[in-house]
Amino acid sequence: MSEIRELALRCRDASRAVAALRTEDRDAMLRAMADALLADAPAILAANAQDLDAARDKGVAAAMLDRLRLDDARLAGVADALREVAALPDPVGQVTRRETRPNGIVVERVRTPLGVVAMIYEARPNVTADAAALCLKAGNGVILRGGSEAIRSNQAIATALHRALEAAGVPAAALTIVEDLRRETMVELLQLTDIVDLAIPRGGEGLIRFVAEHARVPVIKHYKGVCHLYVHADADQDLALRLLVDGKVSRPSACNALETLLVHADVAGVFLPRAAQALRAHGVELRGDAAARALVPGMGEATVEDYDAEYLDLVIAVRVVDSLEAALDHIRRHGSDHTEVIATRDSAVAEAFVQALRSAVVMVNASSRFSDGGELGLGAEIGISTTRLHAYGPMGLEALTVERFVVRGEGQTRNIHG
Amino acid sequence: MSEIRELALRCRDASRAVAALRTEDRDAMLRAMADALLADAPAILAANAQDLDAARDKGVAAAMLDRLRLDDARLAGVADALREVAALPDPVGQVTRRETRPNGIVVERVRTPLGVVAMIYEARPNVTADAAALCLKAGNGVILRGGSEAIRSNQAIATALHRALEAAGVPAAALTIVEDLRRETMVELLQLTDIVDLAIPRGGEGLIRFVAEHARVPVIKHYKGVCHLYVHADADQDLALRLLVDGKVSRPSACNALETLLVHADVAGVFLPRAAQALRAHGVELRGDAAARALVPGMGEATVEDYDAEYLDLVIAVRVVDSLEAALDHIRRHGSDHTEVIATRDSAVAEAFVQALRSAVVMVNASSRFSDGGELGLGAEIGISTTRLHAYGPMGLEALTVERFVVRGEGQTRNIHG
Repeated sequence: MSEIRELALRCRDASRAVAALRTEDRDAMLRAMADALLADAPAILAANAQDLDAARDKGVAAAMLDRLRLDDARLAGVADALREVAALPDPVGQVTRRETRPNGIVVERVRTPLGVVAMIYEARPNVTADAAALCLKAGNGVILRGGSEAIRSNQAIATALHRALEAAGVPAAALTIVEDLRRETMVELLQLTDIVDLAIPRGGEGLIRFVAEHARVPVIKHYKGVCHLYVHADADQDLALRLLVDGKVSRPSACNALETLLVHADVAGVFLPRAAQALRAHGVELRGDAAARALVPGMGEATVEDYDAEYLDLVIAVRVVDSLEAALDHIRRHGSDHTEVIATRDSAVAEAFVQALRSAVVMVNASSRFSDGGELGLGAEIGISTTRLHAYGPMGLEALTVERFVVRGEGQTRNIHG
Repeated sequence: MSEIRELALRCRDASRAVAALRTEDRDAMLRAMADALLADAPAILAANAQDLDAARDKGVAAAMLDRLRLDDARLAGVADALREVAALPDPVGQVTRRETRPNGIVVERVRTPLGVVAMIYEARPNVTADAAALCLKAGNGVILRGGSEAIRSNQAIATALHRALEAAGVPAAALTIVEDLRRETMVELLQLTDIVDLAIPRGGEGLIRFVAEHARVPVIKHYKGVCHLYVHADADQDLALRLLVDGKVSRPSACNALETLLVHADVAGVFLPRAAQALRAHGVELRGDAAARALVPGMGEATVEDYDAEYLDLVIAVRVVDSLEAALDHIRRHGSDHTEVIATRDSAVAEAFVQALRSAVVMVNASSRFSDGGELGLGAEIGISTTRLHAYGPMGLEALTVERFVVRGEGQTRNIHG
């Protein structure tokens, strides 16, 4: 048996111990994980410093170094996040429906852990602890395959977390760090269809496409977030401007940041110059179609690539549309099924926008930046799905469980009686 | 562009018209589909007669010929099933949760169609109409790739159903029959990840493994149902006997039929002879371990293969176990995550059985034959999933939808205000 298969089997066996913990014991284990992280801070930060040195030597880009870097404040933030996960309601065992059938059998739908979740991600040590906590909270085993640049940090974090697991009577294998970081080993992990119940890739589009292409286990993913704001003719323009600025500039690197602004022709003449002024004050570059450029001096030209782009940067594509239908057509052609926003005063127009689009999150008069598990009330977020199966949009703890059937009877039979 | 890709794209475009229908119009379309089937009965039965002739010439087995055969009564049954689907509650647009967040945004979870569902199945023309009705009812487009032996029947059925679609203003492409039945075309269909949202294979294990192996789109499936009945030491033996006989003999070819009987050693001496007598009266062959054979003269020997077998026939494997834990170990080793049953009077033992197993359906004192969408209250069944994602166990209309987020605000922003 290959080493990765053996690791995965051990994780699956250990996951049964996680699922069997009472809620209060599982929550106590998560709090102990937070304590262990802080207790091991010196060792974790020392390992992280080694990772950072090696990454610098390799010439890794500054943005990636920043995501890799831990310090006391960041570690405290991770520990706080673990305590927040501990405090969330336990999804395991929740009875979502109960029905007594005419023959007297009682049918319940009960949330149960998925089993084993494989997280595939880049060099972000905070994800190691976050994702582990969410998977364990939902009663699962977790296999963590992070980026090679973070391997020492991840090992040090796992060493700390494993103490908390073992104190709770859970085998350390329930939280398994993959140390063999060869691509072919990851591919083998992604093809363990009899062991791994779900793979969640998090990171750049290249990583996600690699996982989607090679996985034979189910994958929940999103490639990118090309989020639109459509400003209808009747929109409150101050409101629309707030949504635009918040959506574009508050965190341009987030997948729920706005990438394209669509403005109804009837208000473009008034709205676009204001929008350009407000965005430029935040350093945003605008790229528009001919109609938009005619209204805003100095605006660059938008190509088709611009309308498909997830800039993740202070750039926005702009287009003037003649109607709601034209806005919907644009979103259908260029959207990524992530998050779309309409600004309008007309509830019928809003409803038409909501119904016509199939995106995971559709917003009326609210910022695209609310497209986030915490903001939408999920308590935490393990990822975002634009796969229209199981979970669609931000995924919280419930998305790490599945509903099964529990039936209780008094000897009822279907066809043969007596 | 390949022909199958073009067909799938047309189906996706047409699916928007299905999703956009009001509930009453979609239901009327389904009733019109039932009427059209009956109106076209002569043409459908003539096409079916041609399929049967060709299948006989090919030397197709009798059981398959029976599944392929339509007659007036069977066609009436299919039409009735379509009317029953029409009468089910509409899952599309159901608001499953609504929450007002502290900042005042209102977050709804709303059921929305999956999009395009590809059904891959064998030569069963009734599935063509059934599966189409369920997918359309849930607002989806459907691509039907049935067995080649049923192609004329499927085409005749589709001709009838298309009239009902077009009368409702829905393009016929929303219900697409694949007429190019080459394997490579099926593989291409199963890899249209940007168009097909879900593939559901139905049929023998070979077909399902082929689909699972080649698909890149999400697949929901179950390979087989190795369902267990465990008779605990304290079970009401008359009750256990009823569950055993109903589970094994009422429809041995069904995936929810019992395949293995586990009996606690304390009651095996009394129960097994009774069980053998009752089962043999129905023509069932028993194959047991040494302990079971010692109690039942003439019982054949069970091998490991027997304990893994889905007989789909009048055969049952038997094993005597020393404890609940031994029964659980057996099920964990040999089960298929489909359906398991315990007969016991002790609610604590029942609860331990339910909690320890991860099967899709776990029953206490009720027949495994209730593991069926209709019997469990889903109204209808598109398939059964032992994939622990999205749906687990019998799948009804809800499993053909996904929940998305609809957010309504009054201009709220996340980080940048005013």
